[in-house]
Amino acid sequence: MHILITGAAGMVGRKLTERLVADGCLNGKPIGRFTLVDVIKPQVPAGFSGKVEAYALDVSREDAGRKLIGGRPDAIFHLAAVVSGEAETDFEKGYRINLVGFHYLLEAIRTAGGGYHPKLVFTSSIAVFGAPFPSEIYDEFHHTPLTSYGTQKGICELLLADYTRKGFLDGVGIRLPTICVRPGTPNKAASGFFSNIIREPLAGREAVLPVEESVMHWHASPKSAAGFLVHAASLSRETLGARINLTMPGVACTVGEQIAALRRVAGDAVVARIRREPDPAIIRIVSGWPTRFDAKRARALGFAVEDTFDEIIRVHIADELGGKVAA
Amino acid sequence: MHILITGAAGMVGRKLTERLVADGCLNGKPIGRFTLVDVIKPQVPAGFSGKVEAYALDVSREDAGRKLIGGRPDAIFHLAAVVSGEAETDFEKGYRINLVGFHYLLEAIRTAGGGYHPKLVFTSSIAVFGAPFPSEIYDEFHHTPLTSYGTQKGICELLLADYTRKGFLDGVGIRLPTICVRPGTPNKAASGFFSNIIREPLAGREAVLPVEESVMHWHASPKSAAGFLVHAASLSRETLGARINLTMPGVACTVGEQIAALRRVAGDAVVARIRREPDPAIIRIVSGWPTRFDAKRARALGFAVEDTFDEIIRVHIADELGGKVAA
Repeated sequence: MHILITGAAGMVGRKLTERLVADGCLNGKPIGRFTLVDVIKPQVPAGFSGKVEAYALDVSREDAGRKLIGGRPDAIFHLAAVVSGEAETDFEKGYRINLVGFHYLLEAIRTAGGGYHPKLVFTSSIAVFGAPFPSEIYDEFHHTPLTSYGTQKGICELLLADYTRKGFLDGVGIRLPTICVRPGTPNKAASGFFSNIIREPLAGREAVLPVEESVMHWHASPKSAAGFLVHAASLSRETLGARINLTMPGVACTVGEQIAALRRVAGDAVVARIRREPDPAIIRIVSGWPTRFDAKRARALGFAVEDTFDEIIRVHIADELGGKVAA
Repeated sequence: MHILITGAAGMVGRKLTERLVADGCLNGKPIGRFTLVDVIKPQVPAGFSGKVEAYALDVSREDAGRKLIGGRPDAIFHLAAVVSGEAETDFEKGYRINLVGFHYLLEAIRTAGGGYHPKLVFTSSIAVFGAPFPSEIYDEFHHTPLTSYGTQKGICELLLADYTRKGFLDGVGIRLPTICVRPGTPNKAASGFFSNIIREPLAGREAVLPVEESVMHWHASPKSAAGFLVHAASLSRETLGARINLTMPGVACTVGEQIAALRRVAGDAVVARIRREPDPAIIRIVSGWPTRFDAKRARALGFAVEDTFDEIIRVHIADELGGKVAA
């Protein structure tokens, strides 16, 4: 089994690589080779005895698709993307990376010849949905994104479904919840604060909350995100049917409920490190975002997530902080 | 008022041109100039005293967008498209014309400079929807097309909404029902038989029915299609809100009901010219098509259509046959 991961240097890419190395196999087949690609050269994972090729590549180059599939990977996890905030401020870059780059990959696969027919797992986003919403967003709710990022993800979903329907590849798209708690340092995603207000206080640092506590959102841990990707790769075309793009399950909670969970898990002193500083740009973007989903199909197909935000915080403390919280 | 129509040589393009020439104005402003473009040179409309430029152009050429908007049209009706049957058999051509061509036009507008900000009316299709369907498809039902044509139209809708949201142009997309009765000769659309079984018998010729009489579909006359386009151009951004793509109203009826209407309007001898000849390829394509819609938003926004299929047949007899039916 040869696995290609684009966006492998990103947070989800690293979590996925670690998970696959730990598993040693995908869909019951031993993993013999990784190809890891990102805009910067991804780290070679520790503890893997097979072949690893890791290199930097701009996926929006016209020859990128052919280069990526040169080694005929059996499974491709396409995570490479410009995040929502940057796609909104840099219109051309967002379309170039998030849409054109993906289309080049699809075209390279379609025209590869030799019966090449990989499994392609695409990370979409709940940003394909746009307000106004029903109180719980159902699987058949339409896609009217209110950001360029959501538009690009929605277009990629449509392309993936058509290339799959035509038999050029075996695609599945998963709409990730906001991943929380993101480890590391803030990136340009407008959703960054959902993690910042948990991660930074737990590490003894101050965090800025730019929105009201009443803002509700849909969360899953990085560990769950890696789990979604691995599970998606296991689903056959017959199991999926024609509707190959799925909203992942998540934990719906308000910012206030996030903070209450943080208080339960880590105490008042940690919560006191959150500073309110409303940001009109973030408030405007977030106001168009979805809040909660039923995710019935994904749950029926076996995708699993945390039950509470407390659990999401505990995953972060265990996986990123060695079990320790800054007093 | 300078109006550009792409796909102007097609059936809907000609109906729209005739309607605009007859009206003499759009949104209350006199029409001084037409630019009419298609893959073959469109006819210059009779009875128009203003300036007309008509020429052949492949809209998928990279410089096509810039050429199209060279005269800075105030309103653009983008009808140019490869039809559903051809988009399904010629994958590359479908994407090149229906998606890339439209994207070039959008990009040309975005980068035109000088405050250029046209009204852009895009003809989408109910093919953006894919089975299984609820008994009546509501405006919030998701887009899971089962054809490349529907995929391309769905992608164009997403692009149009994002370019509009970013303020690059003033877009509106209308999902046309199947246009019935199409005048002229059959084209490559898989939906052609819906018109053939009415038009050909009325003209004294035999027609082939390739599907069961139980097949239900969503129809509007060519006259209504021109009306939809003109009305769409009148809607302000404020009226439309963020969801600029609309399912047009139509007449839902089965093939059996179409035939019953033909019998009422034109008699048994005309109906006897329909020959049953099931076509598995057409049956398969049509089985994934939508059947009926509520089209609540479009009706609330003032889009109007025939009340019955009898009326659709009478429009055809009046507009195309000079009121006469072949005995």
